[in-house]
Formats: sequence, structure tokens, C-alpha cells
Amino acid sequence: MKGVETIYGLHAVRSMLMRHPERVISVRLMESRDDPRAREIEDLARRSGRPVQRIDPRALKQALGDVAHQGVVADIEPLPPWTEDDLLTALETAKNPLLLVLDGVQDPHNLGACLRTADACGALAVVVPKDRAAQLNATARKVAVGAAETTPVVAVTNLARALKLLQKAGLWVVGADADAPKMAHEADLRGGVALVLGAEGSGLRQLTRQTCDFIVRLPQLGTVESLNVSVAAGMLLYEAVRQRSTAPARGG
Amino acid sequence: MKGVETIYGLHAVRSMLMRHPERVISVRLMESRDDPRAREIEDLARRSGRPVQRIDPRALKQALGDVAHQGVVADIEPLPPWTEDDLLTALETAKNPLLLVLDGVQDPHNLGACLRTADACGALAVVVPKDRAAQLNATARKVAVGAAETTPVVAVTNLARALKLLQKAGLWVVGADADAPKMAHEADLRGGVALVLGAEGSGLRQLTRQTCDFIVRLPQLGTVESLNVSVAAGMLLYEAVRQRSTAPARGG
Repeated sequence: MKGVETIYGLHAVRSMLMRHPERVISVRLMESRDDPRAREIEDLARRSGRPVQRIDPRALKQALGDVAHQGVVADIEPLPPWTEDDLLTALETAKNPLLLVLDGVQDPHNLGACLRTADACGALAVVVPKDRAAQLNATARKVAVGAAETTPVVAVTNLARALKLLQKAGLWVVGADADAPKMAHEADLRGGVALVLGAEGSGLRQLTRQTCDFIVRLPQLGTVESLNVSVAAGMLLYEAVRQRSTAPARGG
Repeated sequence: MKGVETIYGLHAVRSMLMRHPERVISVRLMESRDDPRAREIEDLARRSGRPVQRIDPRALKQALGDVAHQGVVADIEPLPPWTEDDLLTALETAKNPLLLVLDGVQDPHNLGACLRTADACGALAVVVPKDRAAQLNATARKVAVGAAETTPVVAVTNLARALKLLQKAGLWVVGADADAPKMAHEADLRGGVALVLGAEGSGLRQLTRQTCDFIVRLPQLGTVESLNVSVAAGMLLYEAVRQRSTAPARGG
């Protein structure tokens, strides 16, 4: 995982400079950008002692291709992979942590899409099993549009065991299933929670399901068999964010 | 749009037989399936006078390839495309209709994914502009996994004009934008609403934005620039479904 990753876009570069300036190697801004948002990024970079270079739009296009870079690019140190221990350590100090757990999601596109959504919803990490599941490869990173550099993916050897460790760490483990009696908004997702989604079609594996503290369902009012897993993850994460923004957690 | 479309899976075939038995041409069930859910489908088909055939699993695999068909397949008459007039007529009798409007979504994968989610959330139709937008082609249909056969796509010549007609028909037109002051759950989405999403990156077009009755935002707590459009559609549709299941609309 050595090397350099490139992120782009005003929001992405600004967030990285605000949260992890130590990981920013350099910032490149398009020559023509001289607006408040670009100047803010320049200021943030200079204050953290990060080099800022003004470059030609053609050079930017050459480096990145046709992406919505908004004239702002940063080279950053890649996020080191997290072990289960790293996750448990991070949970010790996290307030009402939100985790996304993917049980048997095989498609790297879906992993990347889930990672992008997990990042947007402020999830601490995404947990996946080491075996028979999509890993964080180049495809997943590309689909995640930079989220792989901020939201860690934790690959665990035994998912049911990992979920039990999360429960011991004080998290509720909440699975999604079309046949659940309770709707997602009827469950309290304001405290620390791990939201668990299974593969499309097959759903949660038996052992994963049994380990969950409770199971909730998402809308299934139409004729399609199931939601796309990244859309289901989006709905469930959205629901947790909504509840947190509406009222504080009971315990915390 | 003549021809035959094939849908599969217990839920999809059951829903079609319940809602639109007149469109079902024939049903095929795998020989080995003799459980209550398969028998229910057989009963539904027979009661509507639709032929049911028992077939060999190999024939099923040959016809469909490696998809999660659950041993249940139906040939159906394709959904005829809806015109703007068809939509306005349907709105006359619909109770608290939910529409999804995609402004400038270019990728047929994204259109298909949005259609699948719109179906799951009980949307009446998906509205897209005729020009410079993804149309319902084979890719979009495939990604929609059957939703293209139940949720109509309405391609309109002038999107802003169409939105005004929806407003005249009594719907609130609600756009999603990252910079909106209000969060989605702070808006009342219980009555008839058209939820409008722009393209990733560029967002809503100026004229579309100006036509919206109000603009709401979705979670953007992380570093990624924007949500995938089908995930954003999922969150916004989820929010409307949640509000409707929690409390009835003020007006009706």
C-alpha cells in the first residue's frame, strides 16, 4: 500500500486538508481559479506547510482525464489498511460510531459504491470478510471516488466473531432483511451501530443473521426482488444520519 | 416496444400476477418447486387464466443464464412507454403520488439503478428529459432487473415545463442539492411530490432549480464530492416512504 494516491475536487481536497493535513503531499490548483473557495484551499495548504503549485488546465486534463476535478487536485499518502485491532482501538474513543458491514458482497463496484456512501454518511469504517468477498482493488477504489482514502476498509477473517467483538465494544449490530418485521426507522440507530447488509439475492448468511441484535427492513413496495446493495446501504446509513441529526442517542 | 419481456424471481412474478395479470403471457415454474410460495404463484396464474408450465432446471438455466430466478419465470407484455399526457392522466387518480425526476443523468446504468429503486419505493413513474439524458435502452433495462416492466419512464421534451405541469397537478417539486439549507427530513414529503435529482458533479440545471418549490440536501459528512445519483435517489425516495409510513399527509 505504499505509493501516492490522487484526490480531486474542491470538497475532497478541502476535507483532506482539514482532517489529515499530514497525509497531503502536495496540492495543485488550476491557474485560472482565483475565487474564495480556491483561495481557502491555498491558505489551508500553506498553513500546514504543504506545497501548492499553480498549473495549466491542459496539464490537469492530461493527468486526470475527463473527471470533475474543479481545478483542484492533491497528491496524498494512501490510507494504510486497518486491522481488526485498529478498528477496536478506534472504537474506544469514537462517539456513537457508525460502521457498515458487508456480508458476502462479491462485486468490487458494489464495494466501491458502498465505500463512497459510507464516507458521505460519516461512517468510521467498512467491514468486509477476507474470504469470498470483494476486496479493495483498483476498480473498487475508482468507484469510491476518493472515499478509499478516508474511510478505512477492515477485512476480517471471521465475520461473526468480528460482529461479537463489536457488540462487546458496545455497538448494536443491525442487519437488513426484506422479511424483517420492523422497518429501519422503527429501530433506534442513534448510538454506536454496525449496519450489516448481505449480498443481493441471497441476503445475510445464517450465522451473520443470528449474530445480529436486530433485523430491519427497507422499502420493498414494488416488483423488484431486492434493492441494489449500495442503494440499500445508502438508505440504512441515511436513516442512521437522520436519527442522529434529529435527536441525540439515549445513552450518549 | 412490441415483443415479449421476461421477468423472474418469486417476488417479481407474484407482484406482476397480483397487479397486472392481463399482461402475463405465461408462467414457467421449475419442476422441483412444490412449496407454498410456488403453489401461490401457480394458483394466481390459474385464477387469471394464464398458462403455467413446469420446466426442467436446465431449460431455465439455458433460457436465463446465471441469474437468481428462484425457479420462477414469466413472459409478459412490455410496459408501453408513457407520454406526458399518460402521466397527467395517471396523476388525476393517484393518491399522494411519488415521482422521481432525473435532470441530465447521462449514464444508462444510473437510469436503470434509479428505476429499480423507484419501483422498490412505489414511485408512480420516472421522468427524464428527451435530450441529453440516458434513455431506457437495453443496458438500463438490465440494470433495472424488471422494474422497467412496472415503473414507466416518461421522456419529456421540456423538463421545466413538465415540472410546472406537475405543480399545476398539485405536486410539490422538490430538488436535491448539496448546498440546500434544509435537510431532506425537514421537508414534508407526504403529499404528492416529484423528487428531482441532477447529474453527479454538475447537479440540477439552473432552470430546473428555479422551478423547484424547495430544495433539500442529503448527508455529505465525508470527503467525497457527491453521492452516486442512484444512491441519492434511494435516500430521497426512502425519506418519502418513511414519512408516509409514519404519518398521513396533511392534505389527504
